[in-house]
Amino acid sequence: MKKQIPYKIYLSEKELPKKWLNLRAFMDKKPAPLLNPETLKPITEEELSKVFCTELARQEIDDTTPYIDIPEEIRNFYKMYRPAPLIRAYCLEKALGTPAKIYYKFEGNNTSGSHKLNSAIAQAYYAKKQGLKGVTTETGAGQWGTALSMACSYFGLECNVYMVKCSYEQKPFRREVMRTYGASVTPSPSETTAVGRKILEEFPGTTGSLGCAISEAVEAASKNPEYRYVLGSVLNQVLLHQSVIGLETKTALDKYKIKADIIIGCAGGGSNLGGLIAPFMVEKIKGKADYQIIAVEPASCPTLTRGKYAYDYCDTGKVCPIAKMYTLGNGYIPSSTHAGGLRYHGMTTTLSELYDQGLMEARSVEQTEVFSAAEQFARVEGILPAPESSHAIRVAIDEAMKCKETGEAKTIVFGLTGTGYFDMYAYKKFNDGEMSDYIPTEEDINKGLKSLPDIKA
Amino acid sequence: MKKQIPYKIYLSEKELPKKWLNLRAFMDKKPAPLLNPETLKPITEEELSKVFCTELARQEIDDTTPYIDIPEEIRNFYKMYRPAPLIRAYCLEKALGTPAKIYYKFEGNNTSGSHKLNSAIAQAYYAKKQGLKGVTTETGAGQWGTALSMACSYFGLECNVYMVKCSYEQKPFRREVMRTYGASVTPSPSETTAVGRKILEEFPGTTGSLGCAISEAVEAASKNPEYRYVLGSVLNQVLLHQSVIGLETKTALDKYKIKADIIIGCAGGGSNLGGLIAPFMVEKIKGKADYQIIAVEPASCPTLTRGKYAYDYCDTGKVCPIAKMYTLGNGYIPSSTHAGGLRYHGMTTTLSELYDQGLMEARSVEQTEVFSAAEQFARVEGILPAPESSHAIRVAIDEAMKCKETGEAKTIVFGLTGTGYFDMYAYKKFNDGEMSDYIPTEEDINKGLKSLPDIKA
Repeated sequence: MKKQIPYKIYLSEKELPKKWLNLRAFMDKKPAPLLNPETLKPITEEELSKVFCTELARQEIDDTTPYIDIPEEIRNFYKMYRPAPLIRAYCLEKALGTPAKIYYKFEGNNTSGSHKLNSAIAQAYYAKKQGLKGVTTETGAGQWGTALSMACSYFGLECNVYMVKCSYEQKPFRREVMRTYGASVTPSPSETTAVGRKILEEFPGTTGSLGCAISEAVEAASKNPEYRYVLGSVLNQVLLHQSVIGLETKTALDKYKIKADIIIGCAGGGSNLGGLIAPFMVEKIKGKADYQIIAVEPASCPTLTRGKYAYDYCDTGKVCPIAKMYTLGNGYIPSSTHAGGLRYHGMTTTLSELYDQGLMEARSVEQTEVFSAAEQFARVEGILPAPESSHAIRVAIDEAMKCKETGEAKTIVFGLTGTGYFDMYAYKKFNDGEMSDYIPTEEDINKGLKSLPDIKA
Repeated sequence: MKKQIPYKIYLSEKELPKKWLNLRAFMDKKPAPLLNPETLKPITEEELSKVFCTELARQEIDDTTPYIDIPEEIRNFYKMYRPAPLIRAYCLEKALGTPAKIYYKFEGNNTSGSHKLNSAIAQAYYAKKQGLKGVTTETGAGQWGTALSMACSYFGLECNVYMVKCSYEQKPFRREVMRTYGASVTPSPSETTAVGRKILEEFPGTTGSLGCAISEAVEAASKNPEYRYVLGSVLNQVLLHQSVIGLETKTALDKYKIKADIIIGCAGGGSNLGGLIAPFMVEKIKGKADYQIIAVEPASCPTLTRGKYAYDYCDTGKVCPIAKMYTLGNGYIPSSTHAGGLRYHGMTTTLSELYDQGLMEARSVEQTEVFSAAEQFARVEGILPAPESSHAIRVAIDEAMKCKETGEAKTIVFGLTGTGYFDMYAYKKFNDGEMSDYIPTEEDINKGLKSLPDIKA
């Protein structure tokens, strides 16, 4: 007999993962290696170690080890806010009148308000272990910066955050959270770095971008040998750490003998989606089970749906390694939408390769329909979702409504990456009926793609 | 052998309480009955039913039924965000170097950000069941208003919230959350009620008070027969609903054979503390176990520590029932501190009576030492606490440090009622070193006490 399925499935501490899953190790055709921006050759662990901690540089390169131990110190920190519950959306199902069964993995039950803490604590741990004094980073929506502040405070590391200027201004309370955890926060572009000054000169009045903030954070770290740079998305190491999301989800589903049909996640740099789908994708690659996997991105920054699979710079300043990825071009400037965490021109190499192989799909959605889904979800499920997460809600609802038409009782699992408590400025715009949609024209897209460097594999 | 104690104890759905605990039913000497403000006689269920839903009026009066069934609809809603975890503060203990064992019951894992949802959903349920169209209420810090908005949205009720003006201005995003859940929010005092207009005339420029907002909400409800008034604290019915906090806590402790020595909670109107201590106080009254129970209040609004046990009006407009309680006088105007939820002149009758009988203690603490505890807690335990909750943290840390001196390994349990995500204005003041303390002078206190009506039992 099947166990009765509770509203929320919490794993016990014993059931929590002890190893991260390295998805790349299971891929027949691997993602293309990162290139050194100076030599255009595959970057080595040694070269990467100038930017990242040594252990993280190792993880970044490693595409063969299938599972990597999670150090005990990190597992202990995870215990403070994990397991994240897998929630059955009984109330949403009822409101929609759908035969579909909807589950969501809720990663917002921590002060950073998102899944970002899963990688932040790992990156802070390795920095501390290496004897470093501090780290620099960038943050878009502010969730990564908050997560890193918390992690650094826990291990006694200094934390300097470059925050994309439009978020810095829209979310003053986000920066206060970071300050409360002892971090210093600088709006980007800033006068504190050469690249920041250059961008300010070229584009006075710019509200910044993730690509630019990354360049500033990398430059700031490179000036101090006791510092390293850390990043909350896009990188392979981040996907590795975020695999705890998928591993917990899979364990919870298996425990109740639930087979997912569709797995949905929002995709900015790909950190959440890459983590969520990891163990499912392994089964799919091995031919053990089939899953429909959907990446959801904003129509205003349609990396997968309208971008190109090509080598590109990860940052505006072109100081970071070059990645082969789906990209709109490093010069693409997304319009100032409210899902700050999804305004990145590229997509992590692993997801790009999986998408290119046809192992996952992508959809783009407009922000008013996203907020409409967010409001509907909040009112019946209680949780006020982050704008980024609401992209996944939108498509989950769409898929559930398709089931209503066809009468299919599919099992839909989506990643609810975080809460929207610091996004009330965006909700206010929506509540006031003042939110509009931004869909880039062909010209906008082509302009971005023209910034792609001419690099062949 | 004792089971190993996890970082977080989550009860299973089966272990969740099916009945609320009515603490008054276990008291030998009961709290004094509420009086009708017109007749000065004990108020009847019928009279109360003009203000409250009938079932809630019944619960308000009932001081004999020990346990009251939680309707299934409410239990289903509880399942969306409960059980609240009981968390072992391993990291805080380590940081303090104390032999004490510290646990906290964390009620902040829901969008309202606090325990208030436990009673909001009950009150909305009974209003809906009675066929009402909507409810009115007041909110101080905004947590109760948010909770009620969520509950009303769930049951399809209208929700009109009078928000204390200083909070309305300090916390613009709180009101956006309420609006997202479909509530209408009015700053209090307002021009929409007679009592509001009167107060504005007498005290132009006032930033409002809970007592005044209550009067406005009651007046607004009384104008519409399809509306009733609901309240988030102070009332007996609220303590009844909040007993889920204590019941879950007790079940979790018993499951791991943990005996608490000290139980600590912040006390504004008393809703959280009354709920948290309920099952423990029953054991204490019965002589089955002893517990040191500590109510923590702000030095700026020292109801228990400097107030008087007397009959007093619960609201500024004197339209609500009169209660015998510890009070600073209905005319007491607390200084504009950052713990908006603890700025109430009185204390729920049950806790007042228990305090008077010597069954619990009270301490008052200053806000800078409260925020200092909040910061310390956040940095090691991850959770960013609400200013109100941080009062309990302050005393929990103080008690743990006493244990360090004496070498005693006491078990301390405190209520972490909510998160501070919407209190970043206050944290900013603290981060900027611009927070000061307000301790009322003897003259301030006496001025408040002079507003006490001359009513004998």
